[in-house]
Amino acid sequence: MFDRPDAEAVKAYLLDLQDQICETLRKTDGGGDFREDRWERPGGGGGRTRIMQDGGVFERGGINFSHVFGAALPPTASASRPELAGRAFQAMGVSLVVHPRNPYVPTSHMNVRFFMAEKPDADPVWWFGGGFDLTPYYGFEEDVMHWHRTARAACQPFGEEVYPRYKAWCDRYFHLKHRDEPRGVGGLFFDDLSEGGFARSFEVMRSVAEHYLPGYLPIVERRRATPFGERERAFQKVRRGRYVEFNLVYDRGTLFGLQSGGRTESILMSLPPEVSWRYEDRPAPGTPEAELYTRFLVPRDWLAEES
Amino acid sequence: MFDRPDAEAVKAYLLDLQDQICETLRKTDGGGDFREDRWERPGGGGGRTRIMQDGGVFERGGINFSHVFGAALPPTASASRPELAGRAFQAMGVSLVVHPRNPYVPTSHMNVRFFMAEKPDADPVWWFGGGFDLTPYYGFEEDVMHWHRTARAACQPFGEEVYPRYKAWCDRYFHLKHRDEPRGVGGLFFDDLSEGGFARSFEVMRSVAEHYLPGYLPIVERRRATPFGERERAFQKVRRGRYVEFNLVYDRGTLFGLQSGGRTESILMSLPPEVSWRYEDRPAPGTPEAELYTRFLVPRDWLAEES
Repeated sequence: MFDRPDAEAVKAYLLDLQDQICETLRKTDGGGDFREDRWERPGGGGGRTRIMQDGGVFERGGINFSHVFGAALPPTASASRPELAGRAFQAMGVSLVVHPRNPYVPTSHMNVRFFMAEKPDADPVWWFGGGFDLTPYYGFEEDVMHWHRTARAACQPFGEEVYPRYKAWCDRYFHLKHRDEPRGVGGLFFDDLSEGGFARSFEVMRSVAEHYLPGYLPIVERRRATPFGERERAFQKVRRGRYVEFNLVYDRGTLFGLQSGGRTESILMSLPPEVSWRYEDRPAPGTPEAELYTRFLVPRDWLAEES
Repeated sequence: MFDRPDAEAVKAYLLDLQDQICETLRKTDGGGDFREDRWERPGGGGGRTRIMQDGGVFERGGINFSHVFGAALPPTASASRPELAGRAFQAMGVSLVVHPRNPYVPTSHMNVRFFMAEKPDADPVWWFGGGFDLTPYYGFEEDVMHWHRTARAACQPFGEEVYPRYKAWCDRYFHLKHRDEPRGVGGLFFDDLSEGGFARSFEVMRSVAEHYLPGYLPIVERRRATPFGERERAFQKVRRGRYVEFNLVYDRGTLFGLQSGGRTESILMSLPPEVSWRYEDRPAPGTPEAELYTRFLVPRDWLAEES
């Protein structure tokens, strides 16, 4: 009874989270700032889109808060969960993607979300989802290990089995099937979380959200001043093409958003600013570019020696 | 009886078509040449991929011939046509996309294809499909009218109603729903064509294929020497992003190819070489860039005054 889902509390938290992250990224960038667009969804709800373009560090960074609701879930949305059909629903979340200019600084992504469907005289159905993942262009073991250590720390309070489970889920999700290639070096991914009740699930979501910056910022600081040239930039643009392929072909949030009449410019903020496609552009063996594929874009337990 | 479908004849035609088009585009380009990759499909069949990169006119041009077959259509492929379930099948086609470097030269696309499914003691089921469409970055009425006049000429021998029908079909197909925006200025699109028998349907496909170069080359010649700078190039890259969005989110051939284990590099040859995404990058009113949206990317009967 004292563990009833509290959508207002989640919403307040998410709005504050967006503020905090923007403020920190703005300071980190040093030059750029976020433009804000508030928007309304014709069907109910809306959002707060914030985007930085051509910053000092971040070539493009977008953070979106959205809260959408409706009187009845559309049939397509409840096809796989018939118990939700016809219920009033709300979905809210914060989603962010940061594309740095320097190819030695990885791209990062974080998303946390909450869903709830209600009807009179019945318990609400609700769950949390979220995660974060890292997409380097040039691989550094210490960066990836720091990222995964932070991911593990986010999960630690909730049991030893949580990190391996969410890490494996992330690897499965961010996979380009048509290239049999992971999008990056992974991190955490979870969905449908209500186990243990609302308070605990909300805590899991908060812990994931709050470990994103401690995971990412030290990597940004370590690599932001690394000199780079045309070669690194060309490789970064080709690799960014994979990011586009994943988001437009596979990413459920992106496709659902585009198909359900979401705000296109807010959804496609996740796409990188400058991208190339080259036919069979495979790096020569022995180069740092080849090493990204052979040592980093492979299934790997990054913390194997530390557990 | 004398109008039985002849897959071998279609295949011979398509291979020759690929040769002819490559040869003409190579001469037109003046600097670049096509690299050829022959490939086999594990499930049966294969193809001949040809790509030009960094040519004199064509920044990227890909022409693919493929012929795939199998002993039984997979259930997903026959879901909407149960009469095909379990039949041996073959599909063949030529598909090409040309991305010129100069933003005043439009991108063009052409595809023709033939499908046949057979089983013992039954008539084969077969059809043709195809079309071509144009995607300008800067609009010129004379170019678009020439393109549509050529499209109309391709259809003319088969009846007055064919061009308006295939033109409208093209407009419906090449539409970015999430932006409520056409991909370009259209052309022709047809599918499931078997009406009138094999000989006539094959003739329609050939006529469409053979009107592609007469439609496109005069436009290339007219615009290839137009001077351009950073501004035009930036706009071209943003507009190319729409091409990527269409091909990865909507195009049936691309998605079917990626999902069915097709050769990824051959399928994604259609993507442009250098692309940008900018947040809400809307051209200022009164500019040539704005005119593309207001005068060209709108539903329009280009030959209204000529019929």
